Amino acid sequence: MNVLIVYAHPEPKSLNGSLKNFTIEHLKNTGHDVQVSDLYAMNWKSALDASDAKTRRDDSYFDASLDSKYAFENGLQSDDIALEQRKLMWADAVIFQFPLWWFSMPAIMKGWVERVYAYGFAYGVGEHNDQHWGDRYGEGTLVGKRAMLMVTAGGWEPHYSERGINGPINDILFPIQHGILHYPGFDVLPPFVVYHTSKVNTDNFPAICNQLGQRLDDLWHTQPIAFRKQNHGDYNIPQLTLKEDIAPEVTGFAAHIVTKQ
Amino acid sequence: MNVLIVYAHPEPKSLNGSLKNFTIEHLKNTGHDVQVSDLYAMNWKSALDASDAKTRRDDSYFDASLDSKYAFENGLQSDDIALEQRKLMWADAVIFQFPLWWFSMPAIMKGWVERVYAYGFAYGVGEHNDQHWGDRYGEGTLVGKRAMLMVTAGGWEPHYSERGINGPINDILFPIQHGILHYPGFDVLPPFVVYHTSKVNTDNFPAICNQLGQRLDDLWHTQPIAFRKQNHGDYNIPQLTLKEDIAPEVTGFAAHIVTKQ
Repeated sequence: MNVLIVYAHPEPKSLNGSLKNFTIEHLKNTGHDVQVSDLYAMNWKSALDASDAKTRRDDSYFDASLDSKYAFENGLQSDDIALEQRKLMWADAVIFQFPLWWFSMPAIMKGWVERVYAYGFAYGVGEHNDQHWGDRYGEGTLVGKRAMLMVTAGGWEPHYSERGINGPINDILFPIQHGILHYPGFDVLPPFVVYHTSKVNTDNFPAICNQLGQRLDDLWHTQPIAFRKQNHGDYNIPQLTLKEDIAPEVTGFAAHIVTKQ
Repeated sequence: MNVLIVYAHPEPKSLNGSLKNFTIEHLKNTGHDVQVSDLYAMNWKSALDASDAKTRRDDSYFDASLDSKYAFENGLQSDDIALEQRKLMWADAVIFQFPLWWFSMPAIMKGWVERVYAYGFAYGVGEHNDQHWGDRYGEGTLVGKRAMLMVTAGGWEPHYSERGINGPINDILFPIQHGILHYPGFDVLPPFVVYHTSKVNTDNFPAICNQLGQRLDDLWHTQPIAFRKQNHGDYNIPQLTLKEDIAPEVTGFAAHIVTKQ
Protein backbone atom coordinates (compact mmCIF):
# COMPACT_ATOMS: atom_id res chain seq x y z
CA MET A 1 0.00 0.00 0.00
CA ASN A 2 1.05 3.64 -0.41
CA VAL A 3 1.64 5.68 2.71
CA LEU A 4 2.19 9.44 2.81
CA ILE A 5 3.70 10.93 5.96
CA VAL A 6 3.06 14.65 6.39
CA TYR A 7 5.60 15.63 8.99
CA ALA A 8 6.32 18.86 10.85
CA HIS A 9 9.26 19.20 13.20
CA PRO A 10 12.19 21.61 12.92
CA GLU A 11 14.88 19.29 14.39
CA PRO A 12 15.83 16.07 12.56
CA LYS A 13 17.51 14.66 15.69
CA SER A 14 14.37 15.12 17.81
CA LEU A 15 12.08 12.43 19.19
CA ASN A 16 9.73 13.23 16.31
CA GLY A 17 12.59 12.77 13.85
CA SER A 18 13.42 9.39 15.36
CA LEU A 19 9.79 8.27 15.28
CA LYS A 20 9.49 9.38 11.67
CA ASN A 21 12.60 7.42 10.70
CA PHE A 22 11.32 4.36 12.53
CA THR A 23 7.96 4.68 10.75
CA ILE A 24 9.49 4.96 7.30
CA GLU A 25 11.75 1.98 7.87
CA HIS A 26 9.02 -0.14 9.43
CA LEU A 27 6.57 0.54 6.62
CA LYS A 28 9.18 -0.17 3.94
CA ASN A 29 10.26 -3.37 5.70
CA THR A 30 6.67 -4.55 5.67
CA GLY A 31 6.31 -4.00 1.95
CA HIS A 32 4.75 -0.56 1.67
CA ASP A 33 5.72 2.40 -0.47
CA VAL A 34 6.35 5.58 1.48
CA GLN A 35 6.52 9.24 0.62
CA VAL A 36 7.33 11.93 3.18
CA SER A 37 6.36 15.58 3.07
CA ASP A 38 8.88 16.95 5.57
CA LEU A 39 7.43 20.44 5.81
CA TYR A 40 10.33 22.14 7.60
CA ALA A 41 12.90 20.53 5.28
CA MET A 42 10.78 21.60 2.28
CA ASN A 43 10.61 25.16 3.66
CA TRP A 44 6.86 24.88 3.16
CA LYS A 45 5.06 28.22 2.68
CA SER A 46 2.60 28.53 5.56
CA ALA A 47 0.51 31.55 4.71
CA LEU A 48 -2.38 31.12 2.28
CA ASP A 49 -2.47 34.20 0.05
CA ALA A 50 -2.95 35.54 -3.47
CA SER A 51 0.41 34.20 -4.63
CA ASP A 52 -0.92 30.63 -4.37
CA ALA A 53 -2.26 30.94 -7.91
CA LYS A 54 -0.05 31.41 -10.97
CA THR A 55 -2.66 33.66 -12.54
CA ARG A 56 -5.41 35.27 -10.54
CA ARG A 57 -9.12 35.40 -11.11
CA ASP A 58 -9.31 39.07 -10.22
CA ASP A 59 -6.30 41.14 -9.26
CA SER A 60 -8.31 43.65 -7.31
CA TYR A 61 -9.79 41.39 -4.65
CA PHE A 62 -8.47 38.18 -3.10
CA ASP A 63 -11.18 35.77 -2.01
CA ALA A 64 -9.63 32.71 -0.35
CA SER A 65 -12.38 30.36 -1.57
CA LEU A 66 -13.10 31.75 -5.03
CA ASP A 67 -9.44 32.22 -5.91
CA SER A 68 -8.71 28.69 -4.77
CA LYS A 69 -11.61 27.34 -6.87
CA TYR A 70 -10.48 29.21 -9.95
CA ALA A 71 -6.86 28.08 -9.61
CA PHE A 72 -7.83 24.46 -8.92
CA GLU A 73 -10.27 24.22 -11.84
CA ASN A 74 -7.94 25.88 -14.31
CA GLY A 75 -4.64 24.22 -13.43
CA LEU A 76 -3.26 27.48 -12.08
CA GLN A 77 -2.35 26.39 -8.57
CA SER A 78 1.24 26.95 -7.48
CA ASP A 79 3.34 23.84 -8.08
CA ASP A 80 3.91 23.04 -4.41
CA ILE A 81 0.15 22.79 -3.81
CA ALA A 82 -0.53 20.63 -6.88
CA LEU A 83 2.30 18.28 -5.92
CA GLU A 84 0.89 17.69 -2.44
CA GLN A 85 -2.54 17.01 -3.92
CA ARG A 86 -1.00 14.37 -6.20
CA LYS A 87 0.66 12.76 -3.17
CA LEU A 88 -2.71 12.63 -1.41
CA MET A 89 -4.33 10.97 -4.44
CA TRP A 90 -1.47 8.45 -4.59
CA ALA A 91 -1.75 7.53 -0.91
CA ASP A 92 -3.87 4.75 0.54
CA ALA A 93 -3.12 6.06 4.02
CA VAL A 94 -1.80 9.37 5.34
CA ILE A 95 -0.03 9.84 8.65
CA PHE A 96 0.08 13.39 10.01
CA GLN A 97 2.97 13.56 12.47
CA PHE A 98 3.61 16.57 14.68
CA PRO A 99 4.34 17.83 18.18
CA LEU A 100 1.22 19.22 19.86
CA TRP A 101 2.02 22.94 20.13
CA TRP A 102 -0.55 25.03 21.96
CA PHE A 103 -3.09 22.25 21.66
CA SER A 104 -3.03 21.99 17.88
CA MET A 105 -0.73 21.24 14.96
CA PRO A 106 2.27 23.51 14.26
CA ALA A 107 1.57 26.54 12.08
CA ILE A 108 3.55 25.10 9.18
CA MET A 109 1.25 22.06 9.04
CA LYS A 110 -1.89 24.18 9.43
CA GLY A 111 -0.63 26.13 6.43
CA TRP A 112 -0.25 22.87 4.52
CA VAL A 113 -3.91 22.11 5.19
CA GLU A 114 -5.08 25.59 4.26
CA ARG A 115 -3.19 25.68 0.97
CA VAL A 116 -3.45 22.04 -0.17
CA TYR A 117 -7.13 21.72 0.76
CA ALA A 118 -8.32 23.66 -2.28
CA TYR A 119 -11.93 24.52 -3.11
CA GLY A 120 -13.08 21.74 -5.42
CA PHE A 121 -10.52 19.36 -3.95
CA ALA A 122 -11.21 19.17 -0.21
CA TYR A 123 -14.23 21.46 0.13
CA GLY A 124 -16.86 22.86 -2.19
CA VAL A 125 -17.20 19.33 -3.60
CA GLY A 126 -20.54 17.85 -4.70
CA GLU A 127 -24.05 19.22 -4.96
CA HIS A 128 -26.01 21.09 -2.33
CA ASN A 129 -29.71 20.29 -2.13
CA ASP A 130 -32.19 19.48 0.61
CA GLN A 131 -31.03 15.85 0.77
CA HIS A 132 -27.32 16.34 0.30
CA TRP A 133 -25.22 19.18 1.62
CA GLY A 134 -22.11 18.74 -0.49
CA ASP A 135 -19.72 15.79 -0.44
CA ARG A 136 -18.24 16.22 3.00
CA TYR A 137 -18.11 14.63 6.43
CA GLY A 138 -17.77 11.09 5.20
CA GLU A 139 -17.90 11.73 1.46
CA GLY A 140 -15.54 13.60 -0.81
CA THR A 141 -12.31 13.38 -2.76
CA LEU A 142 -10.40 11.38 -0.17
CA VAL A 143 -12.99 8.66 0.48
CA GLY A 144 -11.52 5.20 0.87
CA LYS A 145 -8.23 6.51 2.26
CA ARG A 146 -7.20 6.20 5.89
CA ALA A 147 -5.63 8.91 8.05
CA MET A 148 -3.98 8.78 11.45
CA LEU A 149 -2.50 11.46 13.68
CA MET A 150 0.85 10.72 15.31
CA VAL A 151 1.33 13.25 18.05
CA THR A 152 3.86 14.00 20.77
CA ALA A 153 2.86 16.01 23.84
CA GLY A 154 5.00 17.48 26.59
CA GLY A 155 2.19 17.15 29.13
CA TRP A 156 1.45 14.04 31.13
CA GLU A 157 -1.22 11.57 30.05
CA PRO A 158 -3.58 12.37 32.99
CA HIS A 159 -3.46 16.07 32.01
CA TYR A 160 -5.26 14.96 28.81
CA SER A 161 -7.72 12.57 30.47
CA GLU A 162 -11.50 12.95 30.76
CA ARG A 163 -11.12 15.34 33.70
CA GLY A 164 -7.56 16.49 32.99
CA ILE A 165 -6.86 20.22 32.89
CA ASN A 166 -5.90 20.37 29.20
CA GLY A 167 -9.11 18.68 28.13
CA PRO A 168 -9.47 15.12 26.82
CA ILE A 169 -7.05 14.42 23.98
CA ASN A 170 -9.82 13.23 21.66
CA ASP A 171 -11.73 16.48 22.16
CA ILE A 172 -8.59 18.57 21.61
CA LEU A 173 -8.00 16.66 18.38
CA PHE A 174 -11.66 16.72 17.24
CA PRO A 175 -11.29 19.89 15.12
CA ILE A 176 -8.48 18.08 13.26
CA GLN A 177 -9.79 14.51 13.18
CA HIS A 178 -13.38 15.48 12.36
CA GLY A 179 -13.00 18.93 10.80
CA ILE A 180 -9.87 18.34 8.70
CA LEU A 181 -9.74 14.55 8.15
CA HIS A 182 -13.33 13.24 8.21
CA TYR A 183 -14.48 16.32 6.28
CA PRO A 184 -12.93 15.46 2.86
CA GLY A 185 -13.68 11.76 3.32
CA PHE A 186 -10.81 10.10 5.20
CA ASP A 187 -11.48 7.15 7.48
CA VAL A 188 -9.84 8.42 10.67
CA LEU A 189 -7.98 5.97 12.89
CA PRO A 190 -7.51 6.58 16.61
CA PRO A 191 -4.43 8.76 17.16
CA PHE A 192 -1.05 7.47 18.28
CA VAL A 193 0.02 9.79 21.10
CA VAL A 194 3.30 9.91 23.04
CA TYR A 195 2.90 11.88 26.28
CA HIS A 196 5.44 13.41 28.67
CA THR A 197 8.11 13.61 26.01
CA SER A 198 10.80 14.88 28.39
CA LYS A 199 10.77 11.41 29.99
CA VAL A 200 11.41 9.56 26.73
CA ASN A 201 14.93 8.16 26.68
CA THR A 202 16.95 5.34 25.17
CA ASP A 203 15.50 2.93 27.76
CA ASN A 204 11.82 3.43 26.96
CA PHE A 205 12.10 4.45 23.30
CA PRO A 206 12.09 0.81 22.08
CA ALA A 207 8.78 0.14 23.85
CA ILE A 208 7.24 3.18 22.15
CA CYS A 209 8.49 1.90 18.80
CA ASN A 210 6.97 -1.50 19.53
CA GLN A 211 3.58 0.08 20.13
CA LEU A 212 3.93 2.26 17.06
CA GLY A 213 5.03 -0.69 14.95
CA GLN A 214 1.89 -2.55 16.00
CA ARG A 215 -0.27 0.41 14.99
CA LEU A 216 1.50 0.52 11.61
CA ASP A 217 1.00 -3.23 11.12
CA ASP A 218 -2.70 -2.73 11.90
CA LEU A 219 -3.10 0.34 9.68
CA TRP A 220 -5.44 -1.49 7.28
CA HIS A 221 -7.44 -3.33 9.95
CA THR A 222 -7.88 -0.87 12.81
CA GLN A 223 -11.49 0.21 13.21
CA PRO A 224 -11.83 3.91 12.28
CA ILE A 225 -13.47 6.38 14.64
CA ALA A 226 -17.20 6.06 13.95
CA PHE A 227 -17.85 9.67 12.90
CA ARG A 228 -21.36 10.08 11.52
CA LYS A 229 -21.80 10.69 7.80
CA GLN A 230 -23.52 13.96 6.99
CA ASN A 231 -25.79 12.83 4.16
CA HIS A 232 -26.94 9.45 5.48
CA GLY A 233 -30.02 10.57 7.37
CA ASP A 234 -28.72 11.51 10.82
CA TYR A 235 -28.78 15.29 10.25
CA ASN A 236 -31.42 17.86 9.44
CA ILE A 237 -30.55 19.65 6.19
CA PRO A 238 -29.72 22.53 5.87
CA GLN A 239 -29.46 23.21 9.62
CA LEU A 240 -27.05 20.26 9.93
CA THR A 241 -28.14 19.61 13.48
CA LEU A 242 -28.45 16.01 14.62
CA LYS A 243 -32.06 14.84 14.31
CA GLU A 244 -34.05 14.85 17.52
CA ASP A 245 -34.36 11.07 17.72
CA ILE A 246 -30.63 10.40 17.22
CA ALA A 247 -28.72 10.17 20.52
CA PRO A 248 -31.29 12.60 21.98
CA GLU A 249 -29.45 13.18 25.25
CA VAL A 250 -26.01 13.90 23.75
CA THR A 251 -24.53 17.31 22.88
CA GLY A 252 -21.09 18.47 21.84
CA PHE A 253 -18.41 16.59 19.91
CA ALA A 254 -19.55 13.20 21.26
CA ALA A 255 -22.86 13.51 19.42
CA HIS A 256 -21.05 13.06 16.10
CA ILE A 257 -19.65 9.65 16.91
CA VAL A 258 -21.87 6.58 16.63
CA THR A 259 -21.80 4.65 19.88
CA LYS A 260 -22.28 0.91 19.92
CA GLN A 261 -25.70 -0.27 21.13
CA MET B 1 -7.12 51.84 27.93
CA ASN B 2 -4.67 50.19 25.53
CA VAL B 3 -6.00 47.70 23.02
CA LEU B 4 -3.90 45.47 20.79
CA ILE B 5 -5.57 43.87 17.78
CA VAL B 6 -3.80 40.81 16.42
CA TYR B 7 -5.30 40.42 12.99
CA ALA B 8 -4.95 37.80 10.27
CA HIS B 9 -6.61 38.19 6.89
CA PRO B 10 -4.93 38.40 3.48
CA GLU B 11 -7.43 40.84 1.86
CA PRO B 12 -7.78 44.39 3.23
CA LYS B 13 -11.12 44.87 1.43
CA SER B 14 -12.64 41.74 3.03
CA LEU B 15 -15.37 41.58 5.66
CA ASN B 16 -12.60 41.04 8.20
CA GLY B 17 -10.81 44.13 6.96
CA SER B 18 -13.99 46.19 7.32
CA LEU B 19 -14.62 44.85 10.83
CA LYS B 20 -11.04 45.61 11.80
CA ASN B 21 -11.33 49.19 10.52
CA PHE B 22 -14.61 49.64 12.36
CA THR B 23 -13.04 48.29 15.55
CA ILE B 24 -10.03 50.61 15.37
CA GLU B 25 -12.19 53.65 14.72
CA HIS B 26 -14.74 52.76 17.38
CA LEU B 27 -12.09 52.20 20.04
CA LYS B 28 -10.27 55.42 19.18
CA ASN B 29 -13.54 57.38 19.18
CA THR B 30 -14.27 56.09 22.67
CA GLY B 31 -10.93 57.24 24.00
CA HIS B 32 -8.72 54.17 23.75
CA ASP B 33 -5.25 53.75 22.33
CA VAL B 34 -4.98 51.08 19.66
CA GLN B 35 -2.16 49.13 18.11
CA VAL B 36 -2.67 46.61 15.33
CA SER B 37 -0.49 43.64 14.45
CA ASP B 38 -1.69 43.02 10.90
CA LEU B 39 0.10 39.73 10.37
CA TYR B 40 -0.33 39.44 6.59
CA ALA B 41 0.68 43.07 6.07
CA MET B 42 3.72 42.53 8.32
CA ASN B 43 4.64 39.42 6.34
CA TRP B 44 4.83 37.64 9.70
CA LYS B 45 7.13 34.60 9.78
CA SER B 46 4.91 31.64 10.64
CA ALA B 47 7.32 28.79 11.24
CA LEU B 48 9.00 28.53 14.62
CA ASP B 49 12.60 27.44 14.07
CA ALA B 50 16.23 27.89 15.05
CA SER B 51 16.46 31.28 13.33
CA ASP B 52 14.16 32.79 15.98
CA ALA B 53 17.22 33.45 18.16
CA LYS B 54 20.01 35.82 17.20
CA THR B 55 22.55 33.54 18.83
CA ARG B 56 21.82 29.94 19.61
CA ARG B 57 22.27 27.95 22.79
CA ASP B 58 23.66 24.97 20.93
CA ASP B 59 24.11 24.90 17.18
CA SER B 60 23.95 21.13 16.97
CA TYR B 61 20.44 20.57 18.30
CA PHE B 62 17.36 22.77 18.18
CA ASP B 63 15.02 22.29 21.14
CA ALA B 64 11.94 24.48 20.72
CA SER B 65 11.54 25.03 24.47
CA LEU B 66 15.14 25.29 25.61
CA ASP B 67 16.18 27.50 22.70
CA SER B 68 13.22 29.76 23.36
CA LYS B 69 14.10 29.96 27.07
CA TYR B 70 17.72 30.79 26.35
CA ALA B 71 16.86 33.47 23.82
CA PHE B 72 14.17 35.02 26.04
CA GLU B 73 16.38 35.12 29.15
CA ASN B 74 19.39 36.51 27.34
CA GLY B 75 17.76 39.12 25.12
CA LEU B 76 18.58 37.11 22.03
CA GLN B 77 15.10 36.74 20.57
CA SER B 78 14.60 37.95 17.02
CA ASP B 79 13.33 41.53 16.93
CA ASP B 80 9.87 40.69 15.57
CA ILE B 81 9.18 38.41 18.54
CA ALA B 82 10.42 40.87 21.17
CA LEU B 83 8.32 43.66 19.63
CA GLU B 84 5.12 41.62 19.83
CA GLN B 85 5.87 40.77 23.46
CA ARG B 86 6.23 44.48 24.22
CA LYS B 87 2.86 45.13 22.58
CA LEU B 88 1.30 42.44 24.77
CA MET B 89 2.79 44.02 27.90
CA TRP B 90 1.50 47.44 26.78
CA ALA B 91 -2.04 46.18 26.19
CA ASP B 92 -4.88 46.14 28.69
CA ALA B 93 -6.94 44.09 26.26
CA VAL B 94 -6.08 42.03 23.20
CA ILE B 95 -8.47 41.19 20.39
CA PHE B 96 -7.53 38.26 18.18
CA GLN B 97 -9.38 38.67 14.90
CA PHE B 98 -9.42 36.00 12.21
CA PRO B 99 -11.54 33.95 9.81
CA LEU B 100 -12.15 30.43 11.12
CA TRP B 101 -10.21 28.27 8.66
CA TRP B 102 -10.54 24.53 9.15
CA PHE B 103 -11.95 25.07 12.62
CA SER B 104 -9.02 27.03 14.00
CA MET B 105 -7.02 30.23 13.48
CA PRO B 106 -5.10 30.76 10.22
CA ALA B 107 -1.59 29.32 10.14
CA ILE B 108 -0.01 32.79 10.20
CA MET B 109 -1.70 33.56 13.54
CA LYS B 110 -0.85 30.14 14.96
CA GLY B 111 2.75 30.97 14.07
CA TRP B 112 2.42 34.26 15.94
CA VAL B 113 1.37 32.32 19.04
CA GLU B 114 4.14 29.74 18.72
CA ARG B 115 6.90 32.31 18.27
CA VAL B 116 5.73 35.14 20.57
CA TYR B 117 4.70 32.79 23.38
CA ALA B 118 8.30 32.21 24.52
CA TYR B 119 9.41 29.92 27.33
CA GLY B 120 9.67 32.19 30.38
CA PHE B 121 7.14 34.58 28.87
CA ALA B 122 3.95 32.57 28.23
CA TYR B 123 4.96 29.13 29.51
CA GLY B 124 7.62 27.74 31.80
CA VAL B 125 6.72 30.57 34.21
CA GLY B 126 6.69 30.14 38.00
CA GLU B 127 7.64 27.30 40.33
CA HIS B 128 6.56 23.70 40.15
CA ASN B 129 5.84 22.01 43.47
CA ASP B 130 3.12 19.83 44.92
CA GLN B 131 0.89 22.87 45.60
CA HIS B 132 1.63 24.91 42.51
CA TRP B 133 2.24 23.60 39.01
CA GLY B 134 3.76 26.69 37.42
CA ASP B 135 2.05 30.03 36.82
CA ARG B 136 -0.47 28.98 34.20
CA TYR B 137 -4.22 28.53 33.64
CA GLY B 138 -5.24 31.68 35.46
CA GLU B 139 -1.81 32.91 36.57
CA GLY B 140 1.16 34.08 34.54
CA THR B 141 2.68 37.00 32.69
CA LEU B 142 -0.58 38.26 31.17
CA VAL B 143 -2.71 38.26 34.33
CA GLY B 144 -5.01 41.27 34.59
CA LYS B 145 -5.34 41.65 30.83
CA ARG B 146 -8.44 40.78 28.87
CA ALA B 147 -8.62 38.86 25.60
CA MET B 148 -11.43 38.32 23.13
CA LEU B 149 -11.69 36.36 19.91
CA MET B 150 -13.38 38.04 16.97
CA VAL B 151 -14.15 35.34 14.44
CA THR B 152 -15.89 35.04 11.08
CA ALA B 153 -17.24 31.68 9.90
CA GLY B 154 -18.59 30.67 6.51
CA GLY B 155 -20.90 28.08 8.09
CA TRP B 156 -24.35 28.81 9.44
CA GLU B 157 -24.94 29.41 13.14
CA PRO B 158 -26.92 26.15 13.66
CA HIS B 159 -23.98 24.19 12.19
CA TYR B 160 -22.06 25.38 15.28
CA SER B 161 -24.83 24.79 17.82
CA GLU B 162 -24.90 22.21 20.62
CA ARG B 163 -25.91 19.46 18.18
CA GLY B 164 -24.60 21.08 14.98
CA ILE B 165 -22.34 19.02 12.74
CA ASN B 166 -19.23 21.19 13.16
CA GLY B 167 -19.39 20.95 16.94
CA PRO B 168 -20.40 23.75 19.33
CA ILE B 169 -18.45 26.94 18.66
CA ASN B 170 -17.29 27.21 22.27
CA ASP B 171 -15.84 23.70 22.14
CA ILE B 172 -14.13 24.37 18.82
CA LEU B 173 -12.59 27.50 20.35
CA PHE B 174 -11.69 25.86 23.68
CA PRO B 175 -8.13 24.93 22.66
CA ILE B 176 -7.60 28.63 21.84
CA GLN B 177 -9.62 30.31 24.60
CA HIS B 178 -8.46 27.97 27.36
CA GLY B 179 -5.19 26.59 25.99
CA ILE B 180 -3.76 29.77 24.44
CA LEU B 181 -5.49 32.65 26.30
CA HIS B 182 -6.37 31.41 29.80
CA TYR B 183 -3.03 29.58 29.97
CA PRO B 184 -0.73 32.63 30.31
CA GLY B 185 -3.25 34.48 32.46
CA PHE B 186 -5.69 36.38 30.25
CA ASP B 187 -9.28 36.91 31.37
CA VAL B 188 -11.10 35.54 28.34
CA LEU B 189 -14.30 37.23 27.19
CA PRO B 190 -16.98 35.36 25.23
CA PRO B 191 -16.12 35.43 21.52
CA PHE B 192 -17.72 37.73 18.97
CA VAL B 193 -18.66 35.48 16.05
CA VAL B 194 -20.12 36.40 12.66
CA TYR B 195 -21.62 33.34 10.94
CA HIS B 196 -22.62 32.66 7.33
CA THR B 197 -20.31 35.32 5.97
CA SER B 198 -21.47 34.93 2.37
CA LYS B 199 -24.78 36.50 3.46
CA VAL B 200 -23.19 39.63 4.92
CA ASN B 201 -23.90 42.62 2.72
CA THR B 202 -24.25 46.38 2.90
CA ASP B 203 -27.78 45.98 4.29
CA ASN B 204 -26.92 43.86 7.34
CA PHE B 205 -23.34 45.04 7.91
CA PRO B 206 -24.45 48.05 10.03
CA ALA B 207 -26.33 45.75 12.43
CA ILE B 208 -23.22 43.60 12.86
CA CYS B 209 -21.20 46.76 13.60
CA ASN B 210 -23.80 47.81 16.16
CA GLN B 211 -23.44 44.51 17.99
CA LEU B 212 -19.66 44.68 17.76
CA GLY B 213 -19.63 48.28 18.98
CA GLN B 214 -21.61 47.22 22.03
CA ARG B 215 -19.12 44.44 22.76
CA LEU B 216 -16.26 46.95 22.45
CA ASP B 217 -18.04 49.41 24.75
CA ASP B 218 -18.45 46.57 27.27
CA LEU B 219 -14.87 45.32 26.95
CA TRP B 220 -14.02 46.31 30.53
CA HIS B 221 -17.30 45.14 32.08
CA THR B 222 -18.19 41.90 30.30
CA GLN B 223 -17.96 38.90 32.60
CA PRO B 224 -15.06 36.66 31.49
CA ILE B 225 -15.58 32.94 30.86
CA ALA B 226 -15.26 31.33 34.30
CA PHE B 227 -12.34 29.02 33.52
CA ARG B 228 -11.04 27.34 36.67
CA LYS B 229 -7.65 28.40 38.02
CA GLN B 230 -5.13 25.60 38.18
CA ASN B 231 -3.53 26.37 41.54
CA HIS B 232 -6.57 27.34 43.59
CA GLY B 233 -7.52 23.94 44.93
CA ASP B 234 -9.75 22.46 42.23
CA TYR B 235 -7.11 20.16 40.73
CA ASN B 236 -5.00 17.27 41.99
CA ILE B 237 -1.32 18.09 41.56
CA PRO B 238 0.63 16.79 39.66
CA GLN B 239 -2.02 14.74 37.83
CA LEU B 240 -3.95 17.97 37.14
CA THR B 241 -7.23 16.11 37.10
CA LEU B 242 -10.24 17.83 38.62
CA LYS B 243 -10.73 16.69 42.21
CA GLU B 244 -13.37 14.02 42.73
CA ASP B 245 -15.74 16.30 44.66
CA ILE B 246 -15.65 19.13 42.10
CA ALA B 247 -18.44 18.86 39.51
CA PRO B 248 -18.26 15.07 39.95
CA GLU B 249 -20.57 14.22 37.07
CA VAL B 250 -18.88 16.43 34.45
CA THR B 251 -16.18 15.39 31.96
CA GLY B 252 -14.59 17.09 28.98
CA PHE B 253 -14.06 20.79 28.35
CA ALA B 254 -17.14 21.78 30.36
CA ALA B 255 -15.50 20.52 33.57
CA HIS B 256 -13.02 23.40 33.45
CA ILE B 257 -15.64 26.13 33.61
CA VAL B 258 -17.22 27.04 36.94
CA THR B 259 -21.00 26.87 36.65
CA LYS B 260 -23.17 29.09 38.78
CA GLN B 261 -24.91 27.37 41.68
